[in-house]
Amino acid sequence: MNNNHTFEVCIIGGGVIGLSIAYYLAREGVKAAVFEKDVTASKASSAAAGMLGAHSELSGSPQYREFALSSQAEYTSLAEELYELTGIDIELVNKGMLKLAASEKELHDLKRQVLLHNSLSLLSAQETSEMEPYLSKETLGGLYIPGDGHVEPQKLAAAFKRAAVSMGTEIFEHTSVLSIDEQKNRLVTDRGSFSFRKLVIAGGVWSGLFTQKLGISETFYPVKGECFSVMPPAKVLTKTIFYDECYLVPKRDGRIVVGATMVPNDWNTDVSAGGISFLAEKLKAVFPELAACPIRTFWAGLRPQNTRKMPLITEHPENRNLLIAAGHYRNGILLAPGTGQYIRDLILEVPGRKHAEDFCLKKNVGVQA
Amino acid sequence: MNNNHTFEVCIIGGGVIGLSIAYYLAREGVKAAVFEKDVTASKASSAAAGMLGAHSELSGSPQYREFALSSQAEYTSLAEELYELTGIDIELVNKGMLKLAASEKELHDLKRQVLLHNSLSLLSAQETSEMEPYLSKETLGGLYIPGDGHVEPQKLAAAFKRAAVSMGTEIFEHTSVLSIDEQKNRLVTDRGSFSFRKLVIAGGVWSGLFTQKLGISETFYPVKGECFSVMPPAKVLTKTIFYDECYLVPKRDGRIVVGATMVPNDWNTDVSAGGISFLAEKLKAVFPELAACPIRTFWAGLRPQNTRKMPLITEHPENRNLLIAAGHYRNGILLAPGTGQYIRDLILEVPGRKHAEDFCLKKNVGVQA
Amino acid sequence: MNNNHTFEVCIIGGGVIGLSIAYYLAREGVKAAVFEKDVTASKASSAAAGMLGAHSELSGSPQYREFALSSQAEYTSLAEELYELTGIDIELVNKGMLKLAASEKELHDLKRQVLLHNSLSLLSAQETSEMEPYLSKETLGGLYIPGDGHVEPQKLAAAFKRAAVSMGTEIFEHTSVLSIDEQKNRLVTDRGSFSFRKLVIAGGVWSGLFTQKLGISETFYPVKGECFSVMPPAKVLTKTIFYDECYLVPKRDGRIVVGATMVPNDWNTDVSAGGISFLAEKLKAVFPELAACPIRTFWAGLRPQNTRKMPLITEHPENRNLLIAAGHYRNGILLAPGTGQYIRDLILEVPGRKHAEDFCLKKNVGVQA
Amino acid sequence: MNNNHTFEVCIIGGGVIGLSIAYYLAREGVKAAVFEKDVTASKASSAAAGMLGAHSELSGSPQYREFALSSQAEYTSLAEELYELTGIDIELVNKGMLKLAASEKELHDLKRQVLLHNSLSLLSAQETSEMEPYLSKETLGGLYIPGDGHVEPQKLAAAFKRAAVSMGTEIFEHTSVLSIDEQKNRLVTDRGSFSFRKLVIAGGVWSGLFTQKLGISETFYPVKGECFSVMPPAKVLTKTIFYDECYLVPKRDGRIVVGATMVPNDWNTDVSAGGISFLAEKLKAVFPELAACPIRTFWAGLRPQNTRKMPLITEHPENRNLLIAAGHYRNGILLAPGTGQYIRDLILEVPGRKHAEDFCLKKNVGVQA
Repeated sequence: MNNNHTFEVCIIGGGVIGLSIAYYLAREGVKAAVFEKDVTASKASSAAAGMLGAHSELSGSPQYREFALSSQAEYTSLAEELYELTGIDIELVNKGMLKLAASEKELHDLKRQVLLHNSLSLLSAQETSEMEPYLSKETLGGLYIPGDGHVEPQKLAAAFKRAAVSMGTEIFEHTSVLSIDEQKNRLVTDRGSFSFRKLVIAGGVWSGLFTQKLGISETFYPVKGECFSVMPPAKVLTKTIFYDECYLVPKRDGRIVVGATMVPNDWNTDVSAGGISFLAEKLKAVFPELAACPIRTFWAGLRPQNTRKMPLITEHPENRNLLIAAGHYRNGILLAPGTGQYIRDLILEVPGRKHAEDFCLKKNVGVQA
Repeated sequence: MNNNHTFEVCIIGGGVIGLSIAYYLAREGVKAAVFEKDVTASKASSAAAGMLGAHSELSGSPQYREFALSSQAEYTSLAEELYELTGIDIELVNKGMLKLAASEKELHDLKRQVLLHNSLSLLSAQETSEMEPYLSKETLGGLYIPGDGHVEPQKLAAAFKRAAVSMGTEIFEHTSVLSIDEQKNRLVTDRGSFSFRKLVIAGGVWSGLFTQKLGISETFYPVKGECFSVMPPAKVLTKTIFYDECYLVPKRDGRIVVGATMVPNDWNTDVSAGGISFLAEKLKAVFPELAACPIRTFWAGLRPQNTRKMPLITEHPENRNLLIAAGHYRNGILLAPGTGQYIRDLILEVPGRKHAEDFCLKKNVGVQA
Repeated sequence: MNNNHTFEVCIIGGGVIGLSIAYYLAREGVKAAVFEKDVTASKASSAAAGMLGAHSELSGSPQYREFALSSQAEYTSLAEELYELTGIDIELVNKGMLKLAASEKELHDLKRQVLLHNSLSLLSAQETSEMEPYLSKETLGGLYIPGDGHVEPQKLAAAFKRAAVSMGTEIFEHTSVLSIDEQKNRLVTDRGSFSFRKLVIAGGVWSGLFTQKLGISETFYPVKGECFSVMPPAKVLTKTIFYDECYLVPKRDGRIVVGATMVPNDWNTDVSAGGISFLAEKLKAVFPELAACPIRTFWAGLRPQNTRKMPLITEHPENRNLLIAAGHYRNGILLAPGTGQYIRDLILEVPGRKHAEDFCLKKNVGVQA
Repeated sequence: MNNNHTFEVCIIGGGVIGLSIAYYLAREGVKAAVFEKDVTASKASSAAAGMLGAHSELSGSPQYREFALSSQAEYTSLAEELYELTGIDIELVNKGMLKLAASEKELHDLKRQVLLHNSLSLLSAQETSEMEPYLSKETLGGLYIPGDGHVEPQKLAAAFKRAAVSMGTEIFEHTSVLSIDEQKNRLVTDRGSFSFRKLVIAGGVWSGLFTQKLGISETFYPVKGECFSVMPPAKVLTKTIFYDECYLVPKRDGRIVVGATMVPNDWNTDVSAGGISFLAEKLKAVFPELAACPIRTFWAGLRPQNTRKMPLITEHPENRNLLIAAGHYRNGILLAPGTGQYIRDLILEVPGRKHAEDFCLKKNVGVQA
């Protein structure tokens, strides 16, 4: 490889966030280079269950919720576009989510949620049972949220990648970024040096290595999530189930993904016997018969959390050539299209975008003295 | 399990043929039981590349070709039906097949094929290169056959199974059929006895164990086919390629399946180093750059061949309660819908069907003295 | 393959029992043929944890216990022989077993066991903790049984096989036995016919298919056992642990095998989420820290149980050319050498052996009217 | 994790070289910390075939050959020690190597080698055939080198690791070293900072990232090697075979490892169809029957080569607290014990060692201006 290459945009990180950015840029004719230390979508992106829980899972400012809802809404057309461009079906399912109360306290919380959103109504245990006949008779009722579906994250990443590459994006796998020279707009990797006009850090939980170099005082840390999948002999579940901080996602191929534990600051992706046991007990509580179904496989991923507990999707406060899109925690898949479009707009300096909507992050980014 | 169960139809064999029969029967309200000695679709059905080569691959009587063409034509609506019923996309691709001449002799054969089918025309090496830009410049030209696409066999089998089960079919896995009492319409398995009105043998290469018991003098034997898949970084191939008895099938997820060797009478499903090497050399000859692409996995399956070298899809010549659907050799996926419909019609005694169209087999089935 | 072959001994079943018989016969110059419907050692033999629990696990007649102890004692020299002949180390470990009381009732049972065997003595909770420092402080005490070690069953089977083949044994994989003609000493398989002087049925839980044909009124059924393995970062366990019907076996490569559930009459080898959870809870109860260790893999096997609940290792009561070695349930690995030697002696008509020691089975074998 | 930890020695790299150093230090009571960006022994160390080719493969200075021979000689006692300490058998095999001539030119080279070493003698084609009966009759003769055996690299690494950890070594997996402060003897990682008295760089092909920081002008690059393994039904090969730059290593468990291609500057570890084909052709040339044996698995590893084409095992020329042990190329397994001992001696300042024997590297290490 030559010693110096120039790209309009360099993106650090080949997960679903980095690939989404590359995809939306490529659609505008901007050819980016993506640098990935391992292979694309091999970390959190391929471990996610793929829930699009804009209604059910998010808290935060109204702007943040609005951003999440618009990212979710993007999926219908995105699924079609990606299928057209690549032949890959990202397996979008739009059957809604059933949020079950595991305790009187949770029932109380659900009731409050109903008061806030007059489009929702609380369901009795009887009513939830009618919705999902295999549901345990012991549940206390729940909330049905029609809008929250799911996709298949590995297919989403593969489709973003294939589409982006076919439109000119270059992807450098097994390539570590060693240093950033922000004065010269230059990047040193273990495969050579690269010049850029704009640089985006989209390195998931590893983003801290680079934000630190750029003087941003934000710390990233992993919250490991362990999962397993079961394969029931027939279709026994239609909606995503949310129960006692765990979820059951019925995939198009018949698998049900059961997740996920929360293990902060654990950087390896081993799955513990105790972790599987914890999830299996939850499964047994809501769908007793599913606990007898064959387990297919288990895995873990590292959710990229940061100290501020909000994704950082913004320009560097002092250098507009440096951008960051990281800290998506549990919502990387949900927010991938929105993040890709938002960073594209910042890079292309779409009028109105960067000031009006740069809600979530800019003002909070600390710069180290 | 009880000692005696009664089913309208019992089907021996849970491959794609047995599952197709169960599916088409279930659609008419006929609940069948499927007996599978291992797990469903675990043998040839899951090893197939899924080509639908009705135009390119078949020789035989006009009736047989017509049967194959009508089975192929069925796929468009079947893919939709199965998606509706199960959510499983069988990944039907209809981009046609390019049959390349590997030698002057093959070029001559292709020319003859053109003469017979005035809808086809021979392409020069230049023209094939324009169709598939990564094709080697060394090829001698070829034939483009628009109708021959492919599906994903494991998804086809999974969809047939899930749809059939949801409509009442019962599937007994890990269940061997030990004996057939054709007088009493009774089946003994290692999980108990079963009564039937009609019995269908759809046991792939293992069908001989049962046809023998029923006095049919047909011998079945395996022709092992070894395959591997490569994953190019970008889409380099759109059509199925047929070259020197081997094929390259570009799957929807980006894999290219390269197959297959021909090893008669080998009952194991190991893949040899020499087998992979043989296929890799073919790949290199037509798509030199693909030989450098990462290999994903390799596998082998046993094509069910019989001595008469024609599928046996018919009633027993002396007992209309016994049917057979076996010996599909290289064309099990192609003929699965047609076979399922045809056996359904024989069982339901659809007028005109059994006499007029029972072309391929009835008259040829020998009965042992 | 030719239509007729003659072997001194034909063995149905290529599990660890059939391979042990072939091995001990081959050492005496008797070349056997082994018929295996799948591949060798692919069922219960490769799922076993490999415990040699002659002291800890067996109940039954004194003769049966004596037989088990002598089979266990055989392992020391067998491990050396097999290593010499094949280079395969069967990973014999002789560090003893610690049987822990999970309840006052179990403690009482252990005390009774101590009274019967004055070589053993009961250990307090304190003493067991000193033996295994990571043990939970909550246990009630236990029994230390020095003689009960373990081997690696897959390596045992591979070594038996390679040694037997090198001495002339022929192994037919993917070969099903269809019928037995006991008058003509002839076997029909789906790969041709074979003549024998002696026939041994060693088909594990599938033995019933053949004993039935020979008029023996014994029913075999599976008791599925699910297992998983964890890999602690360092060596935390030296002895096999037996606790509340479950065991923990510390393997030479650092894995700890945790097993096993008891699921009667389940013929598939799927592992359920509930099964793993059940075992993980046991693990947590005795070694709390191990529940946090990474799980490596999970699997299940079918223990071959029979109605009489005793292995059947004997000649047919009416035809000395037919022998059976099946029904080893939880003790197939423990009893493999003893069974191989005993069947060898019956076949070679070693004086004194067949009358004096044919304890366990002959008199009990029912012959169907 | 705290923000600062102090270790006597910090080692960058958890491959077989880093682990060997940690092991030999631990034996002297020196507790080291090992920093590994992924998991231990997951790169070249687990991809190696494990040949100990001190006689057959090495060229170079007499001192380098002497170093290699003494490292090889170490294996006999090391295998015993590691077995004692950990229960892991590293599967040392000492049956020698047969180096075959693939051409008249290679035959000529072998003859020259014989002239130089009067302990060796050239074998005719007939004589090599007698040594290895399955060898092709087409070979031109060869050289038998009794001393060159092999070990199982993954077991070697696991044993080094378990032994070192049990003696107090700490291993930090998933931990990247970000910067080195050589003035303050301090290391910054993405898991916190660490102080050291001595630092060893043992990062395989990734060592360049750190040597660069320390001003050493040595470039490291990968030479990818693709391999596969076959499993013959019986033992057909006793010696390691070296032929036309490829090798066949008969492992204790019956596998034969066939390797390896040479692909410089490829950082991914995919295996290409062409790579397998290349190796299979070589296999067919020397052992025609082996090409029909079942292939088990395939893999690739990155040999760490450097521009000087000699391992760098030395102190930093200007700072004795910094050491390097990298660039072992094809000989990492062979040289692991010697490297571990040598670095230990440098750290412990064993008299005579550092001056007299610091042959290979010190004088050549360039320091950047």
